[in-house]
Amino acid sequence: MNYNIAVIPGDGIGPEIVEEAKKVLDAVGRKYNHVFHYTEVLMGGASIDKTGVPLTEEALAAAKKSDSILLGAVGGNVSTSPWYILPPALRPEAGLLALRKGLNLFANIRPAILFDELKGACPLKDEIIGNGFDFVVMRELTGGLYFGERKTEEVDGIRTAYDSLVYNENEIKRIARWAFDIAMKRNKRVCSVDKANVLDSSRLWRQVVKEVAKDYPEVELTDMLVDNCAMQLVKDPKQFDVILTENMFGDILSDEASMVTGSIGMLASASLGDTKLGLYEPSHGSAPDIAGENKANPIATILSAAMMLRYSFELEEEANAIENGIKNVLKKGYRTVDIMSEGKTMVGTKEMGQFIIKEL
Amino acid sequence: MNYNIAVIPGDGIGPEIVEEAKKVLDAVGRKYNHVFHYTEVLMGGASIDKTGVPLTEEALAAAKKSDSILLGAVGGNVSTSPWYILPPALRPEAGLLALRKGLNLFANIRPAILFDELKGACPLKDEIIGNGFDFVVMRELTGGLYFGERKTEEVDGIRTAYDSLVYNENEIKRIARWAFDIAMKRNKRVCSVDKANVLDSSRLWRQVVKEVAKDYPEVELTDMLVDNCAMQLVKDPKQFDVILTENMFGDILSDEASMVTGSIGMLASASLGDTKLGLYEPSHGSAPDIAGENKANPIATILSAAMMLRYSFELEEEANAIENGIKNVLKKGYRTVDIMSEGKTMVGTKEMGQFIIKEL
Ligand SMILES: CC(C)[C@H](C(=O)O)[C@@H](O)C(=O)O
Ligand SMILES: CC(C)[C@H](C(=O)O)[C@@H](O)C(=O)O
Repeated sequence: MNYNIAVIPGDGIGPEIVEEAKKVLDAVGRKYNHVFHYTEVLMGGASIDKTGVPLTEEALAAAKKSDSILLGAVGGNVSTSPWYILPPALRPEAGLLALRKGLNLFANIRPAILFDELKGACPLKDEIIGNGFDFVVMRELTGGLYFGERKTEEVDGIRTAYDSLVYNENEIKRIARWAFDIAMKRNKRVCSVDKANVLDSSRLWRQVVKEVAKDYPEVELTDMLVDNCAMQLVKDPKQFDVILTENMFGDILSDEASMVTGSIGMLASASLGDTKLGLYEPSHGSAPDIAGENKANPIATILSAAMMLRYSFELEEEANAIENGIKNVLKKGYRTVDIMSEGKTMVGTKEMGQFIIKEL
Repeated sequence: MNYNIAVIPGDGIGPEIVEEAKKVLDAVGRKYNHVFHYTEVLMGGASIDKTGVPLTEEALAAAKKSDSILLGAVGGNVSTSPWYILPPALRPEAGLLALRKGLNLFANIRPAILFDELKGACPLKDEIIGNGFDFVVMRELTGGLYFGERKTEEVDGIRTAYDSLVYNENEIKRIARWAFDIAMKRNKRVCSVDKANVLDSSRLWRQVVKEVAKDYPEVELTDMLVDNCAMQLVKDPKQFDVILTENMFGDILSDEASMVTGSIGMLASASLGDTKLGLYEPSHGSAPDIAGENKANPIATILSAAMMLRYSFELEEEANAIENGIKNVLKKGYRTVDIMSEGKTMVGTKEMGQFIIKEL
């Protein structure tokens, strides 16, 4: 089969990690008889430098036309990069938000996995890690505070800023369905996180999620307040299977969850909508401080490519092949600097990519 | 001196932990020649049961008239307590929000301290704990999403819910001043947390905090995005001195911070405004499952009483006496069940209170 992939290298370490993911995809293609065509698309700082804006109409159109999108990372150093002198709507991150909204990618899936080989890197005590954990944060990605109306104005000479948080039942239903569908393929437990003791949007959220749950009698649904969830992620992350939450809470909790695993250089993410077209990117940032130094860990991006094979192209076997390849490389003791520990062999970005390809 | 303290025992374990705090205050009074007068005030579930509402006008007036307020805990079991069948505005937590707003308690101070004796209870690995940590989360408490307009309505037959997040420069200035003032008495570092890459309110927040910083040239100010902060609290809590943030982010981050210390039964909090009148309460909840069993840890409440002596009554020596008393009791090995570990002596709520009094 032929697949058209829009590739957005982006900023910082983006280009080098995406390069390795493409090589891995090509190796999978050779083995399983697929051809992946890549179209490079500009977004973020890289786009600002060439076009003046973080996402052009043409870039959005090219992404839309593709079968799926692979993204490296977006953004630079906020204190030193000239991108951050620009007004907010013209900064790198605005490109990412426009892409999510423009492609209606409302479901962000971020697995939080503790890799057996990397237990040492987990910040939590061994008693809490136990046999490890493996859960998914399902974050609504195109609603809430991120896309509500906002303004800043003077009221009687006093600067006042407004943001608004809006959700309607359809937006909640569709992301809830995603969460329950994924739970059905996992351990059949959904924990819906909100702030229903304060917010109207959270109360509607809780109610609609309960309604959707009726279609999934096998799935156990629980509710949790967001402040409690922030605690539980540290206290006992093993308790979770699928965490379902709105956009801003999901931003905070999914980052906390990644850090709790200690494997942030290893965590993939997928942003999906109603079609097969998805956006796949590592959970970590653009790490401008080590860009171009062959130090970045490409595994999260390669695992994102595996998620693309699974979710957008339904190539389960191929996705598994990549994931197993990575496990083997870790077992053999190869590590990039971010996950390095005593007695292991340190390798660079390119070498890590090569070792993974060898396992395929 | 005479001090009038409004005492709100509240729900769950509230009454028993407040009882011990009062006894400790009385012991301090005997030693240092103060008289503390207590007026009991109803709030939360206890108020609903007697008056039908979570905070009456009279209760608010009594609190307002006092020199300071000591609160146990508010709320019950959401799935089993009849309080949660009531509409949101009549539930226990609404009483707490009304009290905060009614008394203009806009500054919530929550110290996150790892007690040396309780390192074992910290969920983080020893390498991360290092020599321990001691920082403060300063949360804005009467603005933002908590008190913005909200509504739920049908738009073309589709249920839609709205919340709004508003901040004006004055609200930001006054909480920022608190944060810088406290930093001046500590390690002179303020980390202001926002989501300035998305929210207008966060951009105004960042700007106003920078303006206020000019009056505190000795204090180092840094900015951090809320998602990053949720990670950094797990990765390296030692980096923080004073974290300054808005209401909803503060709710999430301060709870995460308490859990990261592993000592949530030990953490006090103060809510203050422009006057000396403050509301002091433990950071933990009402734990209805163990209410009345003499199991609850009263230390957080007793430390809250110490904060009251320090901030509302300027009785520094007296506050130190309580804090040192608690340290000594811990050194001697006495523990309530929540902080129990091998080789220590387990005691109940009342006994813990008595041991602390003995140290005074
Ligand atoms: C870059 C930023 C706008 C973005 C977000 O907040 O969604 C990022 O933090 C993320 O989680 O993908
Ligand atoms: C009870 C609830 C409304 C409250 C809040 O969210 O402020 C609590 O979580 C807190 O942090 O004091």
